[in-house]
Amino acid sequence: GALGGLGLGLWRRQQAAMAASEEDEKEEEELRQRFMAPPVSGLRELRRRRRELRSRMELLIMETQGEVCRALAALDPGAAFAVDTWERKEGGGGISCVLQDGEVFEKAGVNVSVVFGLLSEEAARQMRSRGKSLKAKDGKLPFCAMGVSSVIHPKNPHVPTMHFNYRYFEIEEADGTKQWWFGGGTDLTPTYLNEEDAVHFHKTLKEACDKHDLKLYPKYKKWCDDYFYIKHRGERRGIGGIFFDDVDSPSKEEVFQFVKSCAKAVVPCYVPIVKRHCHDSFTPEEKLWQQLRRGRYVEFNLVYDRGTKFGLLTPGSRIESILMSLPLTARWEYMHTPPESSREAEILEVLRNPKDWVH
Amino acid sequence: GALGGLGLGLWRRQQAAMAASEEDEKEEEELRQRFMAPPVSGLRELRRRRRELRSRMELLIMETQGEVCRALAALDPGAAFAVDTWERKEGGGGISCVLQDGEVFEKAGVNVSVVFGLLSEEAARQMRSRGKSLKAKDGKLPFCAMGVSSVIHPKNPHVPTMHFNYRYFEIEEADGTKQWWFGGGTDLTPTYLNEEDAVHFHKTLKEACDKHDLKLYPKYKKWCDDYFYIKHRGERRGIGGIFFDDVDSPSKEEVFQFVKSCAKAVVPCYVPIVKRHCHDSFTPEEKLWQQLRRGRYVEFNLVYDRGTKFGLLTPGSRIESILMSLPLTARWEYMHTPPESSREAEILEVLRNPKDWVH
Repeated sequence: GALGGLGLGLWRRQQAAMAASEEDEKEEEELRQRFMAPPVSGLRELRRRRRELRSRMELLIMETQGEVCRALAALDPGAAFAVDTWERKEGGGGISCVLQDGEVFEKAGVNVSVVFGLLSEEAARQMRSRGKSLKAKDGKLPFCAMGVSSVIHPKNPHVPTMHFNYRYFEIEEADGTKQWWFGGGTDLTPTYLNEEDAVHFHKTLKEACDKHDLKLYPKYKKWCDDYFYIKHRGERRGIGGIFFDDVDSPSKEEVFQFVKSCAKAVVPCYVPIVKRHCHDSFTPEEKLWQQLRRGRYVEFNLVYDRGTKFGLLTPGSRIESILMSLPLTARWEYMHTPPESSREAEILEVLRNPKDWVH
Repeated sequence: GALGGLGLGLWRRQQAAMAASEEDEKEEEELRQRFMAPPVSGLRELRRRRRELRSRMELLIMETQGEVCRALAALDPGAAFAVDTWERKEGGGGISCVLQDGEVFEKAGVNVSVVFGLLSEEAARQMRSRGKSLKAKDGKLPFCAMGVSSVIHPKNPHVPTMHFNYRYFEIEEADGTKQWWFGGGTDLTPTYLNEEDAVHFHKTLKEACDKHDLKLYPKYKKWCDDYFYIKHRGERRGIGGIFFDDVDSPSKEEVFQFVKSCAKAVVPCYVPIVKRHCHDSFTPEEKLWQQLRRGRYVEFNLVYDRGTKFGLLTPGSRIESILMSLPLTARWEYMHTPPESSREAEILEVLRNPKDWVH
């Protein structure tokens, strides 16, 4: 009959497979819409290996990039993100999205990178903040590193700069053992202190952390204050947020779920603050103070930031994507000291002595 | 009689001593006029120990500071150098002279420092570029470090930035052996290439070197091109000049005389170039390119410069004097590439492939 030689069971299985593949195609199409560019590992491949954590993390960082870019572009309708995809000769590549000189944002970059290849034991040690020793075969370790990282520098000095980064590493030792860990964080760098904003930002992060473990927020809040320390100035870069590195417990799945919650918190952390202040009026003096604070941002990133230093020293890394974090403009004045009890002195006090914003 | 009980011989000796001390006072007064502030070691003390190289070097760096500040101030009559003297808790101090936001100069700093105390073996090793081992008593080495260092950032993009630094170190080992060495250099960072300026600058340096040894200029010119390399950009910071470090031969006296010639060459190297271009007209696009090049200057100083890194890590160092080298303003644009055959591409070509300016 109409079914030819096919038995009914086989026919049903084929129908189900066709439906599933239609479903698949629909899902793929949806992802394509949400991403800024095709993922480094290929959408088909990521979907095929969707049960592996590497694939799930790559989908998460792609999704985060898309979400953040769309949310920011909506705030700055005249401007648009330029999207660059790049390949790394040694393995992997990335997608850099940059909005420059908009109405609201001076420079906003959201970067995804997925790189793999072989690491020297020395480089592997540097990657891992706790410096665990790794046993290499012939001195080389197969590795995979991926992450989404972003710095948003707004024009208005009453809108703070925001940075976030979520990353995942895998290294294979000589005996086939796979070491893996996650790192990341989200932090805020205001030019002027606004307590309401500080509380909103930290509270949103705390809620994301608390879903997983009540110990996480206090621990990662302190880690953030310690990490973003400009030692030679005795100041932190900003009013913090959360920061963690080298996290490999309690389990791969649990850490991934935690990282996912953090990544999903980026837009609700920051976008309301931008909306609240992007039309605030400001004086030339306030703009000047912003420029001086941008100078400190540059000092931290070029002198202390492990990610930047590691990137600049890594052969084959994409310099423009790494230095995307630098502001469009910055300023250094010799011996600038704000007057006592000024709003400039107020933020400096908080940068010198970090506060708890939520309890 | 009129001479009372004094014999004629004694009277004559007293007269001679009085004349000598008058002579001394006159010389002291002259030095006081030429210096920007009293020297760290005290003028009387320096004059008393005038045969020691340490004292002669301190007088030279003070003299150089005065010479350069006066020459620059004469070019920017509306502006004046602010003079700060500072003390280092651990021993020594310095004099920082800074002119900011003048008509001609955006930021010009000339800094003298004379510091001494005890170094850890690790810190001593870092100071010495060749990393010679030093035998310490109880892990600590008495040291003395002094130098004059300066960065001049002009406003007009047709006037290049200039940097120089001349320094002297002494370290005493456990057995009383004194290790000593000199370092220094003068180099130019133009925003746009001007061959005539480049030739004048290098020729003046070559003449200063050639008085001592014909091998010095070619050797130190190459060292300069190698040192001021921004590895992650594949560019040099500027069009070079001379640079040397860790020089302790042929003899203390001969190296000092060479350093003196270099220090005396700073004003004739640079001032004619400033005079020639400080009234050149320029476009907003040229100013923008200058700001981007200033960004590279910041990258070099914060990521690679040994002096800056050493300073930032040294407890008790004066941060404002170290970071005086940073420009007043700088800019970073994502993926900025000048059009082919433009004047911007012309200077980039020379920064990527250094040229010989004199033969």
